[in-house]
Amino acid sequence: MKAAIITIGDEILIGQTIDTNSAWIGHHLHQLGIEIIENCSIQDKAQEIRETVDRLFKKSNFIIVTGGLGPTNDDITKETLTDYFGDELKMNEKVLGKIEDYFKKANKPMLEVHKSQALLPSQARVLENSLGTAAGMWFKDGEKNLISLPGVPYEMRQLITDTLPVIQEEFNIAAYYQRTVHFQGIVESTLADENSEFEKECRAQGIGMAYLPSVGIVRIRLTGKPEQKEEIDQRIEQIGSKYPKYCFGYDDINLAQAVGDLLSTKNVTVGTVESCTSGALAAKITSISGSSNYFMGSIVSYANRIKSDMVGVSTDDLIQYGAVSQQVVESMAKNGRKKLNVDYCISTSGIAGPGGGTPEKPVGTIWIAVDSEKGTFSRCFNFRHNRERNLESTVVYAMNFLRRVMLDLQS
Amino acid sequence: MKAAIITIGDEILIGQTIDTNSAWIGHHLHQLGIEIIENCSIQDKAQEIRETVDRLFKKSNFIIVTGGLGPTNDDITKETLTDYFGDELKMNEKVLGKIEDYFKKANKPMLEVHKSQALLPSQARVLENSLGTAAGMWFKDGEKNLISLPGVPYEMRQLITDTLPVIQEEFNIAAYYQRTVHFQGIVESTLADENSEFEKECRAQGIGMAYLPSVGIVRIRLTGKPEQKEEIDQRIEQIGSKYPKYCFGYDDINLAQAVGDLLSTKNVTVGTVESCTSGALAAKITSISGSSNYFMGSIVSYANRIKSDMVGVSTDDLIQYGAVSQQVVESMAKNGRKKLNVDYCISTSGIAGPGGGTPEKPVGTIWIAVDSEKGTFSRCFNFRHNRERNLESTVVYAMNFLRRVMLDLQS
Repeated sequence: MKAAIITIGDEILIGQTIDTNSAWIGHHLHQLGIEIIENCSIQDKAQEIRETVDRLFKKSNFIIVTGGLGPTNDDITKETLTDYFGDELKMNEKVLGKIEDYFKKANKPMLEVHKSQALLPSQARVLENSLGTAAGMWFKDGEKNLISLPGVPYEMRQLITDTLPVIQEEFNIAAYYQRTVHFQGIVESTLADENSEFEKECRAQGIGMAYLPSVGIVRIRLTGKPEQKEEIDQRIEQIGSKYPKYCFGYDDINLAQAVGDLLSTKNVTVGTVESCTSGALAAKITSISGSSNYFMGSIVSYANRIKSDMVGVSTDDLIQYGAVSQQVVESMAKNGRKKLNVDYCISTSGIAGPGGGTPEKPVGTIWIAVDSEKGTFSRCFNFRHNRERNLESTVVYAMNFLRRVMLDLQS
Repeated sequence: MKAAIITIGDEILIGQTIDTNSAWIGHHLHQLGIEIIENCSIQDKAQEIRETVDRLFKKSNFIIVTGGLGPTNDDITKETLTDYFGDELKMNEKVLGKIEDYFKKANKPMLEVHKSQALLPSQARVLENSLGTAAGMWFKDGEKNLISLPGVPYEMRQLITDTLPVIQEEFNIAAYYQRTVHFQGIVESTLADENSEFEKECRAQGIGMAYLPSVGIVRIRLTGKPEQKEEIDQRIEQIGSKYPKYCFGYDDINLAQAVGDLLSTKNVTVGTVESCTSGALAAKITSISGSSNYFMGSIVSYANRIKSDMVGVSTDDLIQYGAVSQQVVESMAKNGRKKLNVDYCISTSGIAGPGGGTPEKPVGTIWIAVDSEKGTFSRCFNFRHNRERNLESTVVYAMNFLRRVMLDLQS
């Protein structure tokens, strides 16, 4: 089973908008085992749309199109595709009712131009859009299938999510069974090196193994047939449990959620004292809805004066060791835990760059500490990225360091 | 002048990597006045590459290809294109020397496979890559031009930046003159409505006008010929100065930089007391290198206990008015200014969602305050987005509110 994706809109071609839709759709179709043969971004021109659809139907019987479904004049996808499939537009009373409701609820006036959103091809299957006024459309001509969706990412995502089971059924796609394990603090090449035998064994069982790296994090995904559920569950557990320091969870989880779940389970509270990350660690912890149950607050001590006056770091230590030192970062965590009155306090101090580096402490030198009744633990990192990525790395390493201390895996 | 962009690599098609290269290249070519007719992402297959290049050369004489230049077996772009243009690969001694230097400096062993990176087409123009081992190549066949670049974003960007002047010269592209003005806190439709006459006048002068919206921010870009510099400078100043409350700068600036520049010029300091934004405002202010000159620190008072114990908000106010109220947010800014000992203190308190909303204070209700020796000023916003975007909006509105207070434009 092959598919192609077309994105319509000048704003993508001139780089005003980064096309994230294709990656999102590609990822979800790929998970169903569908091979994506091409993504194509084209101009808002009827001739371009017709030619591209024609061309891609020669390579695949399944095309997904996003964009060009808005109510303004430069949105021509609906008219062009309806005409391409020899269909005609008719007022869809059910969709019209939904659009009227939508404007009533939003307390906005409904214009004639919005009403035209309910004009839909008479024979295509209408895919209802619960988040906006542009419905999706599934055109069919013999073996050829084309799904047209709005370009607004969250509307498109909802529509694809709703439609995936229908796609699976329509094309009689054998379901896949997939598990993912997440690691923080170990690099892809080390994992690959240490698990080459494991990978071979998986391959021999017909289980696919993929490494998915991002900043400070590597995921491993195992994919097989539904009847391989037991082997895959066993395999994913096998590789995850091999790395308790690094493995923070399975499947649809992220690090902030995993750490939050652990704090909730242990019924303890956390706070941060941040220098180089300047609140980014606190913001990441609270990116989880409900984090107010365990996250209390922070002191961002960017200036040394705040480190001494508000946090209580000794000025002697600041002078003798410098702000980026084990002594100062440990003192920040210890004093911060008392000031914020929390069970765990994480602190960060480092040189994010581009300025501020010295031969002894080059850009990317970052200290992280965690204080709790178990004691004070700290680590030094030497990141070698730009400012933004050094800080992003610090945030993920700090969150996992907290997890490790909570689980007595700090060393 | 037309161009097309090809991105090569399965990782893009299956959504493992979001293609940001096309948007970046599209933006820079568009700025030169080149029309981008198509972006296309295809698989690492020689036949696909040949067919796509053939097809796009029928629509345009200029193609930029990224990806597939690595040293491993699945990287076939160089071989395929060299063959397509009837050229052959030869060892390029100059590039080989650079690669040897690269490994010497990085203190890594150079393998045979890396040496193959210096095998380059004998007739193509070699574009030296100062950041990696994969050189760019400019193939030419009569009128047809194809530039092949590595897919690693920062290497690609450096190579494009280096090559843009050559592209301009090669294709004899008349340079464009472009100015951009940035607004925060006014929406695109209002700007468009209030400046329809201005837009007409620009059009009559042959000056193009484009609106570029992002979260809480709208940019207007004027584009014309180099000889129109004076009119365009006048026009951009005309529309920017019309909105002193909203206009925070021109051309290559962002809001954090604009606010930072103002703080530096006035030689004053700033701190934040954050509830809903939980450090994200502090992190945004310090995204600017050198911000330690004016940013001192923050208190993230996520829990009410921290608001009272550390910031000094009265518990009576917290009980009577609630944490999301004018009284509390103003008290946070006032007390925070004293505690942090800064000239300006910004505070935020709101309901980011998805939980926590009430009929009186629905999700998206956010209070922002700024305290300084000028007094305490506050505003309430009603954002209607998801958690992430509500917080992002709060951060940009808060930064511009600080700017407005500093310039006595708060009301």
